[in-house]
Amino acid sequence: MKEIKIFSPATIANVSCGFDVLGLALESIGDEMIVRKTSEKGVKIVKISGQKLPLEVNRNVAGVAALALLKKANVTTGFEIEIVKKIKPGSGIGSSAASAAGAVWAINKLLGNPFSLIELVQFAMEGERLASGVAHADNVTPALFGGFTLVRSQEPLDIVAIHTPTDLYATVIHPQIEIKTADARKILKETVLLNDAVKQWGNVGGLISGLYTEDYDLIGRSLHDYIVEPVRAALIPSYAALKETAIKSGALGCGISGSGPSVFALSKGKETAQQVAKAMHNVYENTGIAFDIHVSKINPTGINILESN
Amino acid sequence: MKEIKIFSPATIANVSCGFDVLGLALESIGDEMIVRKTSEKGVKIVKISGQKLPLEVNRNVAGVAALALLKKANVTTGFEIEIVKKIKPGSGIGSSAASAAGAVWAINKLLGNPFSLIELVQFAMEGERLASGVAHADNVTPALFGGFTLVRSQEPLDIVAIHTPTDLYATVIHPQIEIKTADARKILKETVLLNDAVKQWGNVGGLISGLYTEDYDLIGRSLHDYIVEPVRAALIPSYAALKETAIKSGALGCGISGSGPSVFALSKGKETAQQVAKAMHNVYENTGIAFDIHVSKINPTGINILESN
Repeated sequence: MKEIKIFSPATIANVSCGFDVLGLALESIGDEMIVRKTSEKGVKIVKISGQKLPLEVNRNVAGVAALALLKKANVTTGFEIEIVKKIKPGSGIGSSAASAAGAVWAINKLLGNPFSLIELVQFAMEGERLASGVAHADNVTPALFGGFTLVRSQEPLDIVAIHTPTDLYATVIHPQIEIKTADARKILKETVLLNDAVKQWGNVGGLISGLYTEDYDLIGRSLHDYIVEPVRAALIPSYAALKETAIKSGALGCGISGSGPSVFALSKGKETAQQVAKAMHNVYENTGIAFDIHVSKINPTGINILESN
Repeated sequence: MKEIKIFSPATIANVSCGFDVLGLALESIGDEMIVRKTSEKGVKIVKISGQKLPLEVNRNVAGVAALALLKKANVTTGFEIEIVKKIKPGSGIGSSAASAAGAVWAINKLLGNPFSLIELVQFAMEGERLASGVAHADNVTPALFGGFTLVRSQEPLDIVAIHTPTDLYATVIHPQIEIKTADARKILKETVLLNDAVKQWGNVGGLISGLYTEDYDLIGRSLHDYIVEPVRAALIPSYAALKETAIKSGALGCGISGSGPSVFALSKGKETAQQVAKAMHNVYENTGIAFDIHVSKINPTGINILESN
């Protein structure tokens, strides 16, 4: 195999109660990347379409992640990367993670899979460090593992792939405003009430249990965030209305994707997820803010091969 | 059925990372209770052996819980209760919960099961209110449901029975010192660091996932408490030594049972749990404090019938 074309999914981090630990991968939103072996050593980003992003390897998240991998690999060849960028940077659904995770996953594949998924997460996190200043695993993990994922611990890195019910769909609305991850971090308080924290980990327990037992009602009852959403909701215009309408339209729960501005709802079944999309559309068309809406099944497998030769 | 003899198990609340939400039932430690229908209405505690506890219905947790049930039941008969108390009050392994839960479970059985388990939890919580001033569900829930249980939410009460691996054993040491639940509550801070809370709910997610997938290593990696144990450990003499020796002897994790003074360790397999018991014994025999040690399988079913007629 000399060349591989892959799909690298958009992802949702900070799934409601699971701030900083729970993420999931999407199926119908993601980038495409072509990675090919070259005789010249090193990494080149040869083409980026869809978005204006730097081609310089050291300034591109895919490039930085690829270099992190190559530092640990004993290879005589190099790699060139083309990116068809479909996830908008700054949307809050793991745009940089898709590029970083996609690059290392594809190179690993072309090398015959010398690295484990958790090693790939660590390489891809270097891309995240470039993008946001923090090498977080929240989005690269579900991109690489697929389905729901838990980052049980950051240090040492410990990742758990969580069973994902087949009939779970996400509706994601991306209001085209800018929220910097660093700013969204800054407004969080360093301390939280013990009572709220207890409610939060009760919900994490309920959500994980609901995922394993495919108990959609329990998933819905558990999709609450007492800690971060109350602070960050103010950053997203009409957040309360979006959430209220999503729940009224049958969504199991609704929350902020990553640090925003995207807002996601989870539903049982595609039809409900589409109704939620329509209802969110109605809320946002009067705001004067440009927006996209996506409906996607939860992606059970993560990054996958579209073509190879 | 006019008379029933039951076993009502000891329980561990606040299982490590699951402060206020996660509990489990034990199999080889518990009370026996005999409950029989009487033609006279109301509730009588006719005999208590093993411990000195009040026979007056309104001052006895079993009596108060039974009265809470009868208030909601449409019955013409009454009930008398005998308690063979084997769990020492104040031990931190759900002594009052066993009495309260046992009474309502047995009466419900004699009435032909008009109430659901969650309703029985609510009646039994009235017994807990008498015992500690707070109607908490932490111990009565695993006593009634068996296995690992999650109190996802206190208000409204939402309980989840968690899958429990078959080869999981608890070692429990009860140092015979007094720690009042109210005092153990008071020393907790009202606020906690967000960073610690995130680690805690990452571990709750890992523990629940490990229980469903029977991944003992993951259970072990998740059995950490960043919030409550660091504060309460000081209440229990030689806590650090107990914990260290339990882990060294092969335990998956070790923590404070309820609000203490009992300390529990969880292990894979009975043999390891017995080694842990021996090691804990060695730590405590030099302290000059009297103590009991129990080794028990996790009880998958909760309260059960010993005899009926």
